[in-house]
Order: sequence, then C-alpha cells, then structure tokens
Amino acid sequence: MKLDHIGFVVERIDEFVDVLRTMGFSAATKPVPDYDKNVNASFVSIGERDEVYLEVLEPLNDMSAVYNFLKRTGGGLHHLCFEVEDIARISKELEGKGFKMVSPPTDCGAYDENLGRSCTGVTRISFFLLPNRLLVELVEKGR
Amino acid sequence: MKLDHIGFVVERIDEFVDVLRTMGFSAATKPVPDYDKNVNASFVSIGERDEVYLEVLEPLNDMSAVYNFLKRTGGGLHHLCFEVEDIARISKELEGKGFKMVSPPTDCGAYDENLGRSCTGVTRISFFLLPNRLLVELVEKGR
Repeated sequence: MKLDHIGFVVERIDEFVDVLRTMGFSAATKPVPDYDKNVNASFVSIGERDEVYLEVLEPLNDMSAVYNFLKRTGGGLHHLCFEVEDIARISKELEGKGFKMVSPPTDCGAYDENLGRSCTGVTRISFFLLPNRLLVELVEKGR
Repeated sequence: MKLDHIGFVVERIDEFVDVLRTMGFSAATKPVPDYDKNVNASFVSIGERDEVYLEVLEPLNDMSAVYNFLKRTGGGLHHLCFEVEDIARISKELEGKGFKMVSPPTDCGAYDENLGRSCTGVTRISFFLLPNRLLVELVEKGR
C-alpha cells in the first residue's frame, strides 16, 4: 500500500490551481467531472517523479460527496489515497479488521481520463473512515 | 519542491500508530518531542521507498502549536511539508509573492533525531498559510 494522492477540497479548482502554480507546482491536469461522486477533479504533481499528486476537488452540486465537507469546514485537506494491487481483497480484509467502509469498490473512469491513462480494465476505488476521522481512499489502477 | 510528509494531529500517537499498523503500515519511528513547537512526533512511512511519511503529531501541552487545532476539530489532516534546497531563499520568495509566513525558518533538530539522520548542519523548517487554509511547511534537510 503506497500513497497515490492527497485529496484537497476547494470552492473553485481554477483559483486554487493558480495558487499552486505560484507556489512552483506547474503540472496540473485539466479538471474532469466524476458524476458518480459529483465532483470535478484536477491532479497536481507534488512528488519527485510524478508519483504523488494533490487531487484538487470541487463539488459539482449539493449532492456532491464533498459538498457537506466544504460547507462545514470551508474546505481543506480531505483524504489520503493509497494504491493497492487487489482492491476487492484488501477492502474485505480491512472490513474484517473492523474498519468502516463508507464506499465499496466501484469503477472510476474519471481517474483514468484525468491522468491520461490508457488501460483495458477501468480503475476502481473504495473509501474507508479510520479512527481519528482519517478518510482513506484505496485505488486499484486499471491496467 | 517535493512532498516530504503529511502532518496528522491526534490525541495519542501510540493509539493511532497502532491503527496504521493494522492498516499495513509497519515502519514507524519512536516519538521524539519538539520543545519549540511543543509537539511529540512519530513518522510512519507511507510511500514506496521511504520517501513520503505521515507525521503523527500530538500536543505536549496547551501551548502546543497543534493544541487549538485538536480542540477545535478533534484532530485530523493538518499540513503538507515540502522539501526545498534553500529554505531562506524560497521562504523570502514566497513572502514576496504575497503568501503569509506564519513561522520563519528555524532549526528543527527533532526532525533529524526522529528520522535518525546524522548530519553536520541541522534541518530547518518554516510554515506558510496558503489560501483555502492550506498550511504548508518547508523543510531544508541538514546535510
């Protein structure tokens, strides 16, 4: 299990990506909507070799998975996403260990589209809420 | 500028490190106190090659840099730390660009002690508050 990206919620992706550019981070993907979670997402490379991203998220509407978080907190650091080899197995294992699964493994074509990944199998993601309110996403990348 | 670690605030380091172990992250450093910021910190490796850490932080007392955050929010994701080559220059540049410096470059021997780094020059850190409430730490590692 290794860090893939950090989720960060904002009101407006374009404004925040401008801030990151000014900070010195220039490689940002064009926002792609995910109509399953009702979010728009842009990935900004913050690692040494394009291996770690800041995922800048904005809600598409008030049914969005990040809408309440934005309203309650004003936005900010939201979740950590870890890459796994077999999301079905790991998700089941974590549930068996007592971790709360808030969203079971589902397809996430927006991830592949956003990062320009050409793969036969689609990327799949799931979400867990850990103690101390750490929201964790798992991602099994489509190959 | 590249991601070095993610700061995460908790009430009790030992309890949260146990959670991370159960998740599958086993490499955690022994907590080291930083009496400048009044925090205890333990680093847990979450990258592929020990390059990215989750810094688990607990306040040492009510004067701690993370005490109010813990009381207000119950803890959680707190800051992102990026490694830079020349912290004095970059900190000055970011100030010049209008970013709010909340803590100027200072020595942080606790970082070196925690990660078992043997270096002649001590590691230095500074903090900036970006728009959308993103707290950013810069670190120039002692060599």
